[in-house]
Amino acid sequence: MTIRNSLAAIHPLIAARRSPRAFDPARPVSDEAVYAMLEAARWAPSAFNSQPWRFIVGRKGDETYARILDALSEGNRVWARNASLLILTVAQEHGEHGPLRYAWHDLGLATAQLILQVMALGLYAHPMAGFSKDAARDAFGIPVDFAPVAVVAVGYLGDAADLPEALREREDAPRSRRSLSETAFQGTWGHPAVL
Amino acid sequence: MTIRNSLAAIHPLIAARRSPRAFDPARPVSDEAVYAMLEAARWAPSAFNSQPWRFIVGRKGDETYARILDALSEGNRVWARNASLLILTVAQEHGEHGPLRYAWHDLGLATAQLILQVMALGLYAHPMAGFSKDAARDAFGIPVDFAPVAVVAVGYLGDAADLPEALREREDAPRSRRSLSETAFQGTWGHPAVL
Repeated sequence: MTIRNSLAAIHPLIAARRSPRAFDPARPVSDEAVYAMLEAARWAPSAFNSQPWRFIVGRKGDETYARILDALSEGNRVWARNASLLILTVAQEHGEHGPLRYAWHDLGLATAQLILQVMALGLYAHPMAGFSKDAARDAFGIPVDFAPVAVVAVGYLGDAADLPEALREREDAPRSRRSLSETAFQGTWGHPAVL
Repeated sequence: MTIRNSLAAIHPLIAARRSPRAFDPARPVSDEAVYAMLEAARWAPSAFNSQPWRFIVGRKGDETYARILDALSEGNRVWARNASLLILTVAQEHGEHGPLRYAWHDLGLATAQLILQVMALGLYAHPMAGFSKDAARDAFGIPVDFAPVAVVAVGYLGDAADLPEALREREDAPRSRRSLSETAFQGTWGHPAVL
């Protein structure tokens, strides 16, 4: 296998994507940008075109934002309160014809498209699993067939120096992932794909 | 709400993405392209950086490809056999510390990054849920903590005229999605976000 430069090989939007904690608290996101990121999500593929995704969109200063912020875990709330948007993502787990087994998977497809559109707009996104699902369900009256899944913080990059010290260090830490040879296989399980 | 042009508002890679059935059976995909699409997937975000994704990569002519093709439903096999790659995506549902509840969601995030990298390479991708999970598990010895989730067909666009007639019509049909006002909410469930 030849040595290759991982991030240089991939599209700049994907290569530059990361999940910051330092957001600019003073710079709002335009309606056009919000529209574009939701449209990007909406055009994702899904099993049988079931589109098992919904988004609850909070903008800093409005009641929706305040309720999503309240549902976040303490550790997330400390930095996410600087984000311009807090978007709650919701999976439709049951449809007219029974369970939608691909609900979480397809919500993931749509959320990735949202995040990459965010990057294309010069913004950053940080998806979080750390929030109270019950609080989110209660706050918005989410029906039983639907499940709150993630909160995505969106905004312009802020100054890492404004973060609490422990978070500041994480902000500058290099990203890490399991190696490709432990991730992509061929032939049998665990056998690295030859690239 | 002003009238806006949905696809014009979003990044060209996302706007142009669709799931074709007409693939060019004669044009192989380079190793560099396979590397880039897997790298794009590998750098996706995930809950607690758990990276609950694996990929089994079949290239037309190899045994891995043949086994994935065999696992596909009849309706998918008829066109997917022209794809240059068949990639089986796998979610890690259980880890060292118990169930990974975000496995399918995060696999969706990674798969969307793979698909958009495919688009950036001038190729197309078509993710499928229609295949035998049992056959796929048996064919590759996938452990019980992991679940086969999707097969992604990848290749250069082919000639729709070569498809069976019923599929040819679907190839040219406009894509459709539920409206944004039924997808993005604010305030309370079902109340359209004001954009």
